[in-house]
Amino acid sequence: MSKYQKIQIKQAVGVVGAGSFGLTIAGLLAENVEDILIYTRREENKAKMQARKGEYAQLSPKIRVTTSLEEVAKDCQLIFPVVPSKGFRNMMQQLGPLLNPQHFLIHATKGLDSSLAPKEGKIKPEHIKTMSQLIELESLACRVGCLSGPNLASEIQEHQPAATLIASKYTEVIKMGQAALRSPRFQVYGTHDILGAELAGALKNVVALAAGLLGGKGLGMNIWALLVTRGLSEMIHIGKAMGADVKAFLGVAGIGDLIATASSTKSRNYKAGVALAQGTPMREIVGADGDMVEGFRTLEIINQLCQALEINSPIFEIVHRVVFKGMELERAIHFLMTYPYAVDVDFL
Amino acid sequence: MSKYQKIQIKQAVGVVGAGSFGLTIAGLLAENVEDILIYTRREENKAKMQARKGEYAQLSPKIRVTTSLEEVAKDCQLIFPVVPSKGFRNMMQQLGPLLNPQHFLIHATKGLDSSLAPKEGKIKPEHIKTMSQLIELESLACRVGCLSGPNLASEIQEHQPAATLIASKYTEVIKMGQAALRSPRFQVYGTHDILGAELAGALKNVVALAAGLLGGKGLGMNIWALLVTRGLSEMIHIGKAMGADVKAFLGVAGIGDLIATASSTKSRNYKAGVALAQGTPMREIVGADGDMVEGFRTLEIINQLCQALEINSPIFEIVHRVVFKGMELERAIHFLMTYPYAVDVDFL
Repeated sequence: MSKYQKIQIKQAVGVVGAGSFGLTIAGLLAENVEDILIYTRREENKAKMQARKGEYAQLSPKIRVTTSLEEVAKDCQLIFPVVPSKGFRNMMQQLGPLLNPQHFLIHATKGLDSSLAPKEGKIKPEHIKTMSQLIELESLACRVGCLSGPNLASEIQEHQPAATLIASKYTEVIKMGQAALRSPRFQVYGTHDILGAELAGALKNVVALAAGLLGGKGLGMNIWALLVTRGLSEMIHIGKAMGADVKAFLGVAGIGDLIATASSTKSRNYKAGVALAQGTPMREIVGADGDMVEGFRTLEIINQLCQALEINSPIFEIVHRVVFKGMELERAIHFLMTYPYAVDVDFL
Repeated sequence: MSKYQKIQIKQAVGVVGAGSFGLTIAGLLAENVEDILIYTRREENKAKMQARKGEYAQLSPKIRVTTSLEEVAKDCQLIFPVVPSKGFRNMMQQLGPLLNPQHFLIHATKGLDSSLAPKEGKIKPEHIKTMSQLIELESLACRVGCLSGPNLASEIQEHQPAATLIASKYTEVIKMGQAALRSPRFQVYGTHDILGAELAGALKNVVALAAGLLGGKGLGMNIWALLVTRGLSEMIHIGKAMGADVKAFLGVAGIGDLIATASSTKSRNYKAGVALAQGTPMREIVGADGDMVEGFRTLEIINQLCQALEINSPIFEIVHRVVFKGMELERAIHFLMTYPYAVDVDFL
């Protein structure tokens, strides 16, 4: 019936990163896998997590906690890296040398990296890396994929139904990820367009941030829907300029993830926008939960790229001015409301 | 700057239908037009509306109320028909003989008509008419357009910013509609793809109904986002089978309208879904506000069409079973969660 037949996973499966979404993935894995190994950097986290057994994900006796990447690489063929983009390359520089081409890596980080960009001068598309590109850069692993979709962690933890997308050039990565995660309450689609899925997942955080700005001002659904629709269109333009195809932007990892993230107070990026609109100083928002608000980093990286490539992206540009240059939100909304868009849909 | 230059409207502009959205359009017109004529069928409505002057739209001294379609046709070159799809053809059979090819008609009814279908036998695409096709069928008017977008009436009435789309084969219809409606708080896009815009506007009500079913059961954003994403995909498949292009479905009249309607308790279709999920009997929902819940009619028409043309539309089909055949919602959700979708995006 399905082209992805059920395969049994007998080895341990690793999760690198013990944040909210890492634990969520561990919880999903616990339905299909007997041995799950979660990596956390700090000993005190390990102690804390072991003490918290009985709560959600940690509750499963199938889940072990480790502070050793060596152990993860040795025990697990399939590994899910789930760390913020800011620390991703650094983590991969430690994990990479431990990996070989037999490893499968499916990351779930919706952000971008620009650590290869020169300190001076213009950024170029090749300086901007997605997480799968960092994995390939820093290791011999080639069986690489990403997980992306409307996956608010708290809802999955409440056992509510949801779906996600695994994107990889390799069908065996998709199959392996599906076998590890799929359940009657968690549908797992597959696609080979990994660049599109990664860019959609990263770029949508900026639109979610912008949606939070509107929400924080108490504005309604009409302008929200307009922002999301035009925001998606800009995401596609930027994605195309970076070499991606349109399709992933129109599926669960694009529209799906975008509308869930851009309308939920459970999303960090949306919440950061709300806080900003209500006058919370930037340093306070970043200070509390900075690395986790991927939208800020993505916004900075993409803003440089749009300038360098002269990509017309009024929403991304104006959100950058509001977030980083103190532009008043009312002026920004007026600017966008009177922006002379000639056509409705221009990305096909 | 813009390809739609500002044109001045000196004649009266008509609105046929004095429901919530008709009044909203009248209120928008009052910012650009000096003389607005609203048609209502019943004398008592006219008296009521005149007595309510002082409230929102009626407040404008520019707005006159009439029960004479002759007066509308005589005084107005530009007319906005805004009546439920169920009464649209009947209204056009009265208005049609009064119109000539100089009239511009821009309707704002998001529904379909199947009154041309035979009582027995299979429905065919040519039996299903959009409102612009009904206008052309029942009158000599050819300058026909439609208005479609994320336009929750109450928000527009509160003077919140919003945008819409005017679709017409004729650029002069788009220009005229823009001149009549555009303001700093109301952006008006244009497109020539009227069939796509009309079908997107009608079909999205079914997805909004389905979203209401999930909302009524207290389900979260992940499954909602999945429903909307896959629902959009089905809308596009059905639209293509009816001869429409993909584009309109991906702009403000498609995604934009869909996500606003499918997430707002201000939407009648969403509310009807919530009520159904919470056990309100169908006859009570239809009885109270029946003609206004366009999603029910559209669902019945499209269900017949999908059967006749063998269009694969699992969401539309299962929602039809839930709404009209008493299928349990839990079973419907389980069916969709385990439906063997092979690919994520299959409409491009």
